[in-house]
Amino acid sequence: VGCYYGGRLALGGNDVHFLMRGDLDAVRKSGLRVSSPAGDFGLDDVRAHGTTAEIGPSDLVIIALKSTSNGQLDELLQPLLHENTALLTLQNGLGSDEFLAGRFGAGRVMGGLCFVCLNRIAPGVIHHLAQGEVALGEFAGPPLERTRALAAEFERCGVPCRVVESLAAERWKKLAWNVPFNGLSIAAGGIDTGRILSDPDLNELARTLMREVIDGAARLGFTMPEDLESVHMSATETMGAYQPSSLIDFLAGREVEIDAIWGEPLRRATAAGAAMPCLRMVHALIKSQVAARTKPQNS
Amino acid sequence: VGCYYGGRLALGGNDVHFLMRGDLDAVRKSGLRVSSPAGDFGLDDVRAHGTTAEIGPSDLVIIALKSTSNGQLDELLQPLLHENTALLTLQNGLGSDEFLAGRFGAGRVMGGLCFVCLNRIAPGVIHHLAQGEVALGEFAGPPLERTRALAAEFERCGVPCRVVESLAAERWKKLAWNVPFNGLSIAAGGIDTGRILSDPDLNELARTLMREVIDGAARLGFTMPEDLESVHMSATETMGAYQPSSLIDFLAGREVEIDAIWGEPLRRATAAGAAMPCLRMVHALIKSQVAARTKPQNS
Repeated sequence: VGCYYGGRLALGGNDVHFLMRGDLDAVRKSGLRVSSPAGDFGLDDVRAHGTTAEIGPSDLVIIALKSTSNGQLDELLQPLLHENTALLTLQNGLGSDEFLAGRFGAGRVMGGLCFVCLNRIAPGVIHHLAQGEVALGEFAGPPLERTRALAAEFERCGVPCRVVESLAAERWKKLAWNVPFNGLSIAAGGIDTGRILSDPDLNELARTLMREVIDGAARLGFTMPEDLESVHMSATETMGAYQPSSLIDFLAGREVEIDAIWGEPLRRATAAGAAMPCLRMVHALIKSQVAARTKPQNS
Repeated sequence: VGCYYGGRLALGGNDVHFLMRGDLDAVRKSGLRVSSPAGDFGLDDVRAHGTTAEIGPSDLVIIALKSTSNGQLDELLQPLLHENTALLTLQNGLGSDEFLAGRFGAGRVMGGLCFVCLNRIAPGVIHHLAQGEVALGEFAGPPLERTRALAAEFERCGVPCRVVESLAAERWKKLAWNVPFNGLSIAAGGIDTGRILSDPDLNELARTLMREVIDGAARLGFTMPEDLESVHMSATETMGAYQPSSLIDFLAGREVEIDAIWGEPLRRATAAGAAMPCLRMVHALIKSQVAARTKPQNS
């Protein structure tokens, strides 16, 4: 996610610095390569760094690491901040906005929801498969001038971007898809969205989970569009044998963003009085499955 | 199960014939060996057969094959029947009583619930680990003279056996344990009962599932003992790292009795008006996990 969106912004002429870990040597040597239905591109001269101290104070920090690594952000972000540095988290689910706001000030925090299918197929080599839109909002309130300016810059650089009035409402709208489909893809034995839709019991269960999320959101004051269930279900039908990102992480033995996608929504909605028996169950099962799985040797 | 209980009855001097498949050659050559805390025993001269036609009409047929193979019973049982042949199913869960009653007449059918830990460690070699009691009842109504006579014969042969007034109620009582513990052991990623108890979320989920089963039973007219939940939970605490039989089957790539343990209870209880959201979910997930698993090469 960081390579793709950062790459698009750099291609558009912005002064983008990348914090890299596993990809650092490959990108320093061979640059960044992106194949994309929106046009392939390569960046030969990438400003890739191994530490944020090398990068120094910046106007905008885009945060694309997994939310399970948020504990590292205190140390990672400190060298990047000046008085007006904005923080844009592209992370999934719930919790990162509040985490950043608590540590660095609510006024800095923006959130972007990425509707995109990306694979990192080798160090510095990104395969962009489909979609790519970003929904951009402010944590502390309605959109600001900087929100619209950043959205315009994304658009200029080839990233469809829409500004949203309520970042939190937008997160719940996306969770209404991620909770059932990322969840059942793991809990039902490592299956893709096509198999979830074609099994009548799992299809019904996906709808039940989706309705629990929609009900939970409503209790928190975020009223979802009336047709959200049918919109999400129809969109899923066009995806074919799609593997949600959490399933890919699970199968590869990598960390799964359990708290951001299931734990935190469950906590917030039940605190607001929602029952959520199926979300409670899928959360407990996935936590246990992740703890019980045998980690593959190369990951 | 068949080797153990049949072996005890044969050891006591009854004329027991065994229908065997994979174990036939080994048992013909080397007999049956049972190691047991209640006393090891061996049978050198076992009446082991490859077909039921070889056995012929019998007074009592003990059915110990998996309920997933019930489709074979029409053919298997026909040669064993005379006018008064009784059928005793030692199979798990719900459905086999009614299946046998529908095919062969309700009056023939008895059911036995086995509370026993057994492993077949090699062909004809049985390791009896713990317990062993049979709860015996009639399908068509309260106990008969034959029920008490058979229970007395089991007792004489070293098998603790109690006669139950209602076979169906007894099945629901056992399901209140099997549904949550066999279920979560598979659905939560292949874990034993000790891990279910020690994870607070799974512990709570086990209790929720148990309460759904108890509620379902009550709606069908089978009122469970008030303390059943605490009795089952306390008993589970003494089991340590116990792997329920369904988990062992699942991990070995063998058929799992999904319908008998989860599907049929769900159907009957929801038909009687119970909600059962968690049982519905665990049933759908296990069905999918069994369908999705990679079968090991040697089983």
